[in-house]
This record gives sequence, structure tokens and C-alpha cells, in this order.
Amino acid sequence: MNSRNRLITLLTDFGAADWFAGTLKGVILGLQPRAAIIDLTHEVPPGDVRAAAFALAAACRFFERGTIHLAVVDPGVGGPRPAIAVETRHYFFVGPDNGVLSLALQRESVRRIHRLENSKYFRPTISQTFHGRDIFAPVAAYLSRGVSCHRFGRKHENYCELRWPEVRLRPDGVEGEIVYVDRFGNAISNLGNELLDQTSNNWAVRLRHSRLCPVRPFYQAVPTGKPVAVPGSSGLLEISRNGGNAARAFGLKVGTKIRLVSLSD
Amino acid sequence: MNSRNRLITLLTDFGAADWFAGTLKGVILGLQPRAAIIDLTHEVPPGDVRAAAFALAAACRFFERGTIHLAVVDPGVGGPRPAIAVETRHYFFVGPDNGVLSLALQRESVRRIHRLENSKYFRPTISQTFHGRDIFAPVAAYLSRGVSCHRFGRKHENYCELRWPEVRLRPDGVEGEIVYVDRFGNAISNLGNELLDQTSNNWAVRLRHSRLCPVRPFYQAVPTGKPVAVPGSSGLLEISRNGGNAARAFGLKVGTKIRLVSLSD
Amino acid sequence: MNSRNRLITLLTDFGAADWFAGTLKGVILGLQPRAAIIDLTHEVPPGDVRAAAFALAAACRFFERGTIHLAVVDPGVGGPRPAIAVETRHYFFVGPDNGVLSLALQRESVRRIHRLENSKYFRPTISQTFHGRDIFAPVAAYLSRGVSCHRFGRKHENYCELRWPEVRLRPDGVEGEIVYVDRFGNAISNLGNELLDQTSNNWAVRLRHSRLCPVRPFYQAVPTGKPVAVPGSSGLLEISRNGGNAARAFGLKVGTKIRLVSLSD
Repeated sequence: MNSRNRLITLLTDFGAADWFAGTLKGVILGLQPRAAIIDLTHEVPPGDVRAAAFALAAACRFFERGTIHLAVVDPGVGGPRPAIAVETRHYFFVGPDNGVLSLALQRESVRRIHRLENSKYFRPTISQTFHGRDIFAPVAAYLSRGVSCHRFGRKHENYCELRWPEVRLRPDGVEGEIVYVDRFGNAISNLGNELLDQTSNNWAVRLRHSRLCPVRPFYQAVPTGKPVAVPGSSGLLEISRNGGNAARAFGLKVGTKIRLVSLSD
Repeated sequence: MNSRNRLITLLTDFGAADWFAGTLKGVILGLQPRAAIIDLTHEVPPGDVRAAAFALAAACRFFERGTIHLAVVDPGVGGPRPAIAVETRHYFFVGPDNGVLSLALQRESVRRIHRLENSKYFRPTISQTFHGRDIFAPVAAYLSRGVSCHRFGRKHENYCELRWPEVRLRPDGVEGEIVYVDRFGNAISNLGNELLDQTSNNWAVRLRHSRLCPVRPFYQAVPTGKPVAVPGSSGLLEISRNGGNAARAFGLKVGTKIRLVSLSD
Repeated sequence: MNSRNRLITLLTDFGAADWFAGTLKGVILGLQPRAAIIDLTHEVPPGDVRAAAFALAAACRFFERGTIHLAVVDPGVGGPRPAIAVETRHYFFVGPDNGVLSLALQRESVRRIHRLENSKYFRPTISQTFHGRDIFAPVAAYLSRGVSCHRFGRKHENYCELRWPEVRLRPDGVEGEIVYVDRFGNAISNLGNELLDQTSNNWAVRLRHSRLCPVRPFYQAVPTGKPVAVPGSSGLLEISRNGGNAARAFGLKVGTKIRLVSLSD
């Protein structure tokens, strides 16, 4: 066993209320007692592949090389969607090929992708509704034990991609949209922080109803209750509210359009 | 120490919002630094012994032999209900004797049951309201260190059993009821998947208002929004809805009667 | 490395829904693969420094000596509030100096406090909104590796203290107030259990509308649905309801005044 492959992260929509995530851990530790299992989250909204893909892409790069990232948000479980294992330059990814891995893979150098077909690496009995426990968890454990991806099944050419909403240049600014809302009500956009380094140093974000929201380095740089756009910790501009919930207060949700404008023009 | 007893699972109604579950871990690791602690869930509805018993029975068998399962849903804490440790063929179970262990124990071969009476294996100070921390957690840690059950106290003859609702044969089918609703809104019944292997291959489930729900191998075998009964991953037939919450849409809750009928008669 | 410093506890308001807590663990394990990370809770209400301080004080002492307690409830992140590491007789504490550590520190013998200023112990890139990941988590990992507090920055004289509400002697009893409400609806007061040992053995608590609530050793010592005051597991008197949610039923919240009275006078 390569000691570098000891870490296994879990990202699912199983919730904390039932025993599903715990069961995955039982299966993994039964096959690989030396695994260290880290929960990224189990509270992805049920079936929300896009939110899961975003969370995985945001979190995966903070783990050491060789980490195995297991992502199971799988509304098509039991149906024809393939299950895959992916080896990249830094990591392994395991999950259904429904887009949940795609935002993370787009930033990685992909080495190979294989389908999960060899039942030698599954649990002896496979349910049709809980592949997380019966297929994905054992495969992650075998990866951690050093089994190579190509043993799991045939080569898989392309993974299913989620469309990342495009950033558009408009006469009066840069148009983006909200791609994720976190527990604090911060509305994360698809506008990269690096946009802010260019040209202007007096940026603001125009929300709905033309509300203007200054770009500042941190939340408390504006008075309590006021909106502020901050270069977010995921590398993306986010709309926040000092001491409050921006998404709720300003009606922002996934898909809401925003515009980055320069006030110094 | 037997290295097989390293794993300790926790199942409680402590919730994630307070520090209770974390405190149990501190106590366990203080006595047994080599323990690997796995959360099954801490989100059992407060005091819901039946839901906890179901979750424990569903999850416990996915752990390796020697695992110590600690289940603390204990509305009678401080009162006369005994506290017990149970050794079975595969596992150890620790908890109050209020039925929370019973559904798991019914499927295990029980070797011995002892009361938790010997304060040598408790925390030095015992609160009357948090035996999870002061009694159950230390006992689990000592089990993990290899202390034998009989050291904890007198032999305990019978454990408190929860009644498992009976399956009834009716002229027009098999009557069962919902025993658990999971976070996805899947309504798990007391009808074993093995019923489906017999006689017919065109089964359906009749819900309230005579709604018929076909039995299919997985969720997406029916159109989006439609009800489907699937052989569930816990070995029990469950009522689901492709892409939605079946319990909410079809008014199913614990105790709701359903009927399995053969359409090919 | 001192093996006594292997345990790192996390207490945050990051919630379980996003990837924030998982990311902290990735950062810690990348720097200190031997760390054992324990979640106290991530469900502190967003920005609620007082609730976090209470939970930390209630939980920290159940961990073994040398444990590193990381507490990040940090509404002022990116602003002028200092970040600190504290060494006490038993533990290390890391967090913003906004009071979140103070209730725990008041019960500890503080040895030294240093500011987190030396970027050698931070992540290479520091966001302005996620110091948990970029500053606090790496510092905790370095503490666990045996780095001494004074390496992180200048000495810090006094830590920011939260006021603990005073207990007042009144002609007809002892006045206190609710300081925390847990998931069960138990309303924990600032009245220490030790008050009950004195003078009387027929204590009761007077709630709003003059409702009298007897002091009993455990919940089921009163009939179902009835209020009861019990010497709580955190060392403080708490108002409970047998089989129900006391805070909701009796209108108790943080700050609600209560009075401990002796019925035997």
C-alpha cells in the first residue's frame, strides 16, 4: 500500500439523519482498516448534481496528493449511467458519470478514466439503489490499497460535463451569475477574483433592481446589514452581507444574473 | 488489546448542533487512544427509540467483526431502566435497555448480556442526565481495550424488545406498514424483499386511495414524479418517487398500511 | 512530535451543508498526517460567538491533556480583530480573539497567549474571508507538530472576555438567567449545580408567569409533559420537560430570567 493513498473524502446527498454515510465508512474500513475518512459534506440537496460538483471542485485541491475523492450524488442509481474511477495528476475520483466529478476534473490533468465493471471489487451483493455502499465505497477502498484504475473495467473515453455558465463581456461591465449559495447566505458567482486585478480599482457589483454593491476585501469593510462583494475563498467573487444572509436579503439564488462594473470609468 | 475491537460506532439523538457527540469522543479517546470512532448518526429524532433501533439494525452488519456499537437514545436516563453491554457472535452493543438495541440483536446470535453496574468502568463523576458521556462512552472504550462484558455487572437475562409490526396475509395480497422514512422521503416498509421472489413477477404496492405503485428494480425505471416500489438496500421493500419525496407526495409515514398485490393473478 | 498533541477538536459555525469544515481537515492532515480530528460541532448559529464560547467551555475539559481546541466563529474575519494561540495548563486553544475562547479560558490556568502573525505558519495564500482554512487550521497543525506558541507572533496580553451573566441574591431566592438552549430544548442556566447542596433540600425554580418547576435528579422524576429543573451535565442547573421541549413549551431563551427558590422555608 502506498501510504499517500490513505485519505478518502466523502461527498454525498445522504444527509446526516439516516445511517447511509456511516455504512459507507463501515464498508471502507472493512476493506482498508488504515483509511482515514473525511466528510466533505453529506448535506448536498437530494439529487443536486450541480451543487455537489461545485463543492467537490472547491474542496478537493486542499487535500494532499493521492487523496481519493468519492462523490455520490446519484439520482440515476441503478439505471444506465456509467460508474467511473478517474486518476488525475494529483488525485483519484470515484463516482457516477453524471457530471458530479466534472467541475473538479476540469481543473485537473486527467490521466485515465475507467468504468467500474469488475464485480470482484464490489460488495458480494449489489443493491439497485445504494451503489454508494455496494460499488463506490469498496472501489475507493481498493484504490486506497493500491489497486490500479484499469483493473476496475474498460477505459472510458470522456466524462460527462456540466456546463459552467459563461462570463460575458457587456458594454457596461462583465455579466456573470450566481452558481452556489452557502450556509451563511453568501452567493458565489462565476466571476473569478482575478478579474478584479485588471484596469480598475473601483469595482462594484450591480444586483437586481440596480442595487450597487461595492467590492471590498472582507465583510466588515461595510456597515452592518449592507451588501458587499468580496473576492471569495474559492477563487470566485461572492455577494455577501455584513452580519446577515445576502441571498435571502437580496433575492439571490443559483442562476441569478449579476454584473461587475467599474465605478472609476 | 484485540485490534479487531478498534472500531466504535455512535448512534444517538444528540444532534449536531451542540457539543454532546464530540464530548463522547473525547471521553472514549482519553481511555482508548487507538479507537476509530464512526458516526452512524446523531440526528435520530429526540427520544425516538424505534427510529434509532431501525437505523442500528440497518447499519450494524456492514462493520467488521468486533466492532463496538454504542447506541444512546435514552429518554429514561437517570431512571430505573438498566444499562447493558451485549456480546454477540459478531459484535458488541452498548446502550440503555429500552429497546434501542433490540432490532439489531434479533438478527444476531447473542452470547451474553451484562448490566453496567461497576463504577470502576465509569467516569469518576456520574451526572443523572448524560449517561452517554459518563457511563456508555467509558464502557465502550473499555470493551475496545479488551475488558470482558462480565466485568461490568450482573448477568442480564432478557433485553427489552420492540415489537416489529407483523406482515399479514390477506385474500388480496400481503399487508405491511411503513417502518421508517429516510431523508429522501423513501418510505421503508416491513415487507422483506424476498417476498418478491415468490409466485408472481408482476408485483405492485397499493397505497392509500388505492394508488398503485409498480415494483421495479430502481427509481428511474418509472417516469419522473411517479411512484415506484423498489427492493430496498436494507432488505425491505420501499416506496419511492423518481426525482421526488414519496413520503410527502403520497402521505406516507411510520405506521401507514400498504398492501403488496400481484397484478398477474 | 509530542504524541500527546495528536488530538485537534473543531468548533465552528461553518455548518454541515458546505465543504468548509472538510477543507479545514484537508489542510490540517496535509501538514500533520497523524492528527486525529474531532468535530465538537459545526452548527453554531452563524456568527453566534456566545453560543460557541459556551459549547467550547462545556466540552473542552473532556479531552485529554495536550488536545488542541480550534474554535472559529469569526464574523470579523479579515478585519482588525487579532488571531491568537493560547497555551494553558492542560490544552492549546486557537481562534479569533473575539471572546469565543474566553469562557473556556476563564476556567483554565493560562500560561501564554501569542498572536498569529508569522505567515511562515499560514497557507501560502491567505484569503480575507476564510482564515479558518488559511491561518487557524495550519497553526493548529503546527501546534500538533510541536511548534511552540511563541513562534507564531508577539505576546498578547489579555484576551477578549465575554461577560458571564451574574448570579444575584434576592430576598426570595437566587436570580439567574438562561445562557444556552440545546437541541432537546433544555434551557441551561448560569446557576451552578453546587448551589443546590446548600441549606435547603426542597428547591424549585420559578419561571415566567410564576410557574414553579421542582428540582429533581433526572427528567423522568416528574410526569410526562411536566417541567423539571435538573442539575445539568455541564455543571449548571437546566430547565427541562419530561418527554418534550422545555424552551418551546415554557418560552425560555437565552437571557430569560429565572429564580431558584427554597420551598422548605
